[in-house]
Amino acid sequence: MPKDELPILVDLHKNVYFDDEEGEAVILDRRKLPLDTTHYRCKTYQEVAEAIEKMVTQSLGVSPAAGYGVVTAAYQAQEKNKSEKKKQIRKAVKRIKNTRPTQTSLHYLMDEMLETAEEKIGKDENLFKAMRKKAYDWTKNLMKVSRKLGKHTSKIIDDGDTILTHCYGGPAIYFMGDYARRDGKEVNYYCTETRPYLQGARLTSFALSQGGFDVTLITDGMPAYCMSEGLISKFITGADRISMDGGVANKIGTCQIA
Amino acid sequence: MPKDELPILVDLHKNVYFDDEEGEAVILDRRKLPLDTTHYRCKTYQEVAEAIEKMVTQSLGVSPAAGYGVVTAAYQAQEKNKSEKKKQIRKAVKRIKNTRPTQTSLHYLMDEMLETAEEKIGKDENLFKAMRKKAYDWTKNLMKVSRKLGKHTSKIIDDGDTILTHCYGGPAIYFMGDYARRDGKEVNYYCTETRPYLQGARLTSFALSQGGFDVTLITDGMPAYCMSEGLISKFITGADRISMDGGVANKIGTCQIA
Repeated sequence: MPKDELPILVDLHKNVYFDDEEGEAVILDRRKLPLDTTHYRCKTYQEVAEAIEKMVTQSLGVSPAAGYGVVTAAYQAQEKNKSEKKKQIRKAVKRIKNTRPTQTSLHYLMDEMLETAEEKIGKDENLFKAMRKKAYDWTKNLMKVSRKLGKHTSKIIDDGDTILTHCYGGPAIYFMGDYARRDGKEVNYYCTETRPYLQGARLTSFALSQGGFDVTLITDGMPAYCMSEGLISKFITGADRISMDGGVANKIGTCQIA
Repeated sequence: MPKDELPILVDLHKNVYFDDEEGEAVILDRRKLPLDTTHYRCKTYQEVAEAIEKMVTQSLGVSPAAGYGVVTAAYQAQEKNKSEKKKQIRKAVKRIKNTRPTQTSLHYLMDEMLETAEEKIGKDENLFKAMRKKAYDWTKNLMKVSRKLGKHTSKIIDDGDTILTHCYGGPAIYFMGDYARRDGKEVNYYCTETRPYLQGARLTSFALSQGGFDVTLITDGMPAYCMSEGLISKFITGADRISMDGGVANKIGTCQIA
């Protein structure tokens, strides 16, 4: 990997994008990582919705995929009249929202894209380009937030820390270590496998080792022993959902590590 | 399964035995359970040693396999003279001991079989039959000890208990529940998968569900959560080794459940 290039999983723009030449939404197939780095290609928004349902992507890959799903619908509708365009976007938004009924950020993006789409169609502006910009900007913002989160968290990292991870916490897990290392701190990682989907084994340890960190992969039964041997200094995990009152729904397995 | 028949994994005589007609040691291939119930056949003691090394069997299947390895050597040596017979048995014992340098019970059995072999060869008695009896009696005694252990442990089981298991603790795990149920107690099991070899998923839950118990399989990350929800009343695990001073070397994962 060239210096300063991000691990592929960390760079969300490489996780989901639109291929203008083929007219396809392209999604990094996380189910095949780390052995195969292949992309899953979708010609229709229905295919994008199915890809989300089949777990082709997960974590912060889902909402960009949803965004590019609407882009795909806009691409398909380019030759249609205003009313057909509106109908197409509405159908796409509805179908894609159904893939993750509880993911509020995805629903927020879908509502925003629908609003923008109706505005652009009304003004007879280029719908496809507007949707593509929306999906790109959304992804760009996720990267910005992940960097910020990583920078913020890096401040509590001490030189020589070994950080235990559970599941895959998104790009911030990488940025945290990367900012710490830029500050001259040595950082190592231990990753749990995270059964049943093995996100830790397949995603976290892949992204971190591609990013040049020393990574030790352990089974989900090992954290307590590693801690008792003094091998772990900090623990970080992703929260599946955080409610407005501060309640946290964590990945199964967090409880016994905490 | 006919009433009163033991689950195949629990009945050690079905895990390893000698096929007189084919002249082969036959070992239940635990690597293929639970989807395939197939046996691994060995014509030579070298093949038996390799089978042990390749984890074809494990836990209480290992020492019976070692025993039947010597039986195989005796079968092969039937037409040979006394000195060749002795040489063959010595080589077999040495090779099989090397498969598990730290398993004292296996070494004890090998020493016993060698001693008996030399005695029988000296008296010109049937070496093969004597070895086969030794291996069978050893297996029979393991069954007796497992039943005793199960009966003993069943007394601390209460009616309605849900028992969490980790790894595969041998036939005693089944007998414990079986004796409790004969005493009119209702017993259910939760089994961890037990990564990396999945003994819990492939062996324990297979043996217990074949034995008619209600079994719930969970990932290694779930015990603490299940306990916090009050789903577990007792926990049992196998000890890999117990030293004379009472020290216990347990399967990885025991620490964080305890």
